Amino acid sequence: MTTTSHTLAMIAGGVATPAGFRAAGISAGIKASGKPDLALIVSDRPATAAAVFTTNKAQAAPVLVSREHLAASQGTARAIVTNSGCANACTGEDGLRVARGMAAATADLIGCPAEQVLVASTGVIGVSLSLDKIRTALPRGMAALGADQGAAAAQAIMTTDPFPKEAAICVSIGGRDVRIGGTAKGSGMIEPMMATMLGFLTTDAAVPLPVLQRVLREVVDNTFNAITVDGECSTNDCVMILANGASGVTIDDASYQAFAQALETVCLRLALGIVRGGEGATKLITITVTGAASGSEARTAAKAIANSPLVKTAVHGGDPNWGRLIAVAGRAGVAFDLSRAAVTIGSIELFKDGRPFDEQAPEAAKYLKNDDINIAVDLGSGSASATVWTCDLSAEYVRINAEYRT
Amino acid sequence: MTTTSHTLAMIAGGVATPAGFRAAGISAGIKASGKPDLALIVSDRPATAAAVFTTNKAQAAPVLVSREHLAASQGTARAIVTNSGCANACTGEDGLRVARGMAAATADLIGCPAEQVLVASTGVIGVSLSLDKIRTALPRGMAALGADQGAAAAQAIMTTDPFPKEAAICVSIGGRDVRIGGTAKGSGMIEPMMATMLGFLTTDAAVPLPVLQRVLREVVDNTFNAITVDGECSTNDCVMILANGASGVTIDDASYQAFAQALETVCLRLALGIVRGGEGATKLITITVTGAASGSEARTAAKAIANSPLVKTAVHGGDPNWGRLIAVAGRAGVAFDLSRAAVTIGSIELFKDGRPFDEQAPEAAKYLKNDDINIAVDLGSGSASATVWTCDLSAEYVRINAEYRT
Repeated sequence: MTTTSHTLAMIAGGVATPAGFRAAGISAGIKASGKPDLALIVSDRPATAAAVFTTNKAQAAPVLVSREHLAASQGTARAIVTNSGCANACTGEDGLRVARGMAAATADLIGCPAEQVLVASTGVIGVSLSLDKIRTALPRGMAALGADQGAAAAQAIMTTDPFPKEAAICVSIGGRDVRIGGTAKGSGMIEPMMATMLGFLTTDAAVPLPVLQRVLREVVDNTFNAITVDGECSTNDCVMILANGASGVTIDDASYQAFAQALETVCLRLALGIVRGGEGATKLITITVTGAASGSEARTAAKAIANSPLVKTAVHGGDPNWGRLIAVAGRAGVAFDLSRAAVTIGSIELFKDGRPFDEQAPEAAKYLKNDDINIAVDLGSGSASATVWTCDLSAEYVRINAEYRT
Repeated sequence: MTTTSHTLAMIAGGVATPAGFRAAGISAGIKASGKPDLALIVSDRPATAAAVFTTNKAQAAPVLVSREHLAASQGTARAIVTNSGCANACTGEDGLRVARGMAAATADLIGCPAEQVLVASTGVIGVSLSLDKIRTALPRGMAALGADQGAAAAQAIMTTDPFPKEAAICVSIGGRDVRIGGTAKGSGMIEPMMATMLGFLTTDAAVPLPVLQRVLREVVDNTFNAITVDGECSTNDCVMILANGASGVTIDDASYQAFAQALETVCLRLALGIVRGGEGATKLITITVTGAASGSEARTAAKAIANSPLVKTAVHGGDPNWGRLIAVAGRAGVAFDLSRAAVTIGSIELFKDGRPFDEQAPEAAKYLKNDDINIAVDLGSGSASATVWTCDLSAEYVRINAEYRT
């Protein structure tokens, strides 16, 4: 197998940027604020579709319905319909009726089978979603569809997000261009595990279904699954990708790496957007764990550090309290050797070979005034490593979540 | 085996209340604030001693030294010497020298072997502890020892604790009185797992070493190990008990239950004090999980709920956001059946048999204005249950921990 040479370039845009896709974002009156809350992503031809969903055992109705539709359509979809302001989770039989109704109404307007429409919802859990409001708004949504409306769709899926997240890339494979676009939302209840909050990806490449499923799973594991805001895994997490082939380029073994790299670039951009826009976040923290006994132990330790409220508040306060990093590594349930462990904040070594260098703390405190923080912890127990991204924990996180519904 | 009839009565006091014990709490200059930071607990005769320690792999020097001493003395101790303001953790060989030096200097003043003195420290990790300051202060501590100085010792072990924790009980066994006293500290970095922050217990009962080890382990598992403030397990956690026999009563099979019940009452009082005084806490939350497949799964789910920042902030804000309880139960990695699950806040059912009763939310919001909150979650998957205690998450927690060292 030879690998086709390729070039990558980030481009402006999002889900409607690849050829043959249009998007819309409108207000359906689900949010009391009247802000946009209904998004459509439509391909002008049947697209190959793959998705990864939350591992939470309390799965929301739209997750169950999208799974059903992907199975029934054998991985073919024309559209994604999604709302914010209501998660349609823990809503029983009635919730399933509403999720199926959203898909059916969208399919009617497009003129495709209902199982070729995927559904997603995000917002408050346990509140009924009004199918009437969605049915009433959908024709307006169809009329608003445009190749220049990706940003509107990105707006319409936001809940507590402080800004919309979208990204697009052009990858030139053997002289022919393929585009990948994406949008994501998520700010709290973020530790996606096997998926993320909501992420929607489109590409005008033709990608055979098994290849699309494989590349999505691999890329999500290194991007959306490597972030955490608050260690919470939602009932509604999903990442969906539609590949409609409008570019005329088919992804094969030779171009797989180019496509995977491009997709990972888009997904990482979106995932880091979620972390930067984490509830109350003021800093993006990159945590690298080295010296682990295995890759999985490295990831476990990095996630434990990333979810530690003591680490997150210390970074928030600009306090180089490296002892908390050691304490978390020591309780993370992974191999750890204190006499060989090390902690580095930025490029400043604060602990090494079993002894502290606390005299470096003032320099580390100065470094912590930056917005982008790198923390490295060596477990002293092997040669595996992992990187995880998180944000700091601020009083604003408490305020947002203490007042979410009140 | 017959069980001796017994009566229990809470009494005023703490670690110096049982016969034959004295305590002291003084300032040794370890805390920059000049507040009390050195505590002594001394038995007038050799006491049977048992302890449980942190499971954190980064064990502090005093933990290692106390383990050594308990082994060398075969479970006999005359005293506990402990300081606040510095954890003497991650301090390498020099930390071990200081911990051994604290014990040796105390033993010299008492006139006993060094291995009959147990050591504990709490405070900032990674900073050197001054043995000179402790050596200089110890004679003053010995002079201050008194049976009425338990409260001073309880004061001297505090760090971010908003109030001291002590408790004492009198248990009458076959007409003869035995007293149990205790003190504990801890406010942040609290999810003790197999031990807790610092807890010191004394009793004037005579308790054979294997019995003392067993009862301590059992009681700690239901009390200190069932609380969490922030899901963090410290490098210094320990609970120690000294039984000096000064009451003339020996605990045997017939009186074991009476003694265990009395000890559990003291430990639960202290453990709940730690939660009520958790960093930034405004509410005590009792979380009961029922319908679990096993006791261990019940505990796992209860701990996951107790550590969820979204649950803790919702309770803080008085928001009956029961969907977050379901979302956490669903991601906790235990058997969970959404169609049979239930959520009750106070006595108000908000979710049952797969459907929400969100119209009850206003009544639940009113209930959440109380200081003591009961939350029950049924996993719908079995008949096992567990109870865990935690506190809410406030902006004050963030403030305390963002500014801990600065």
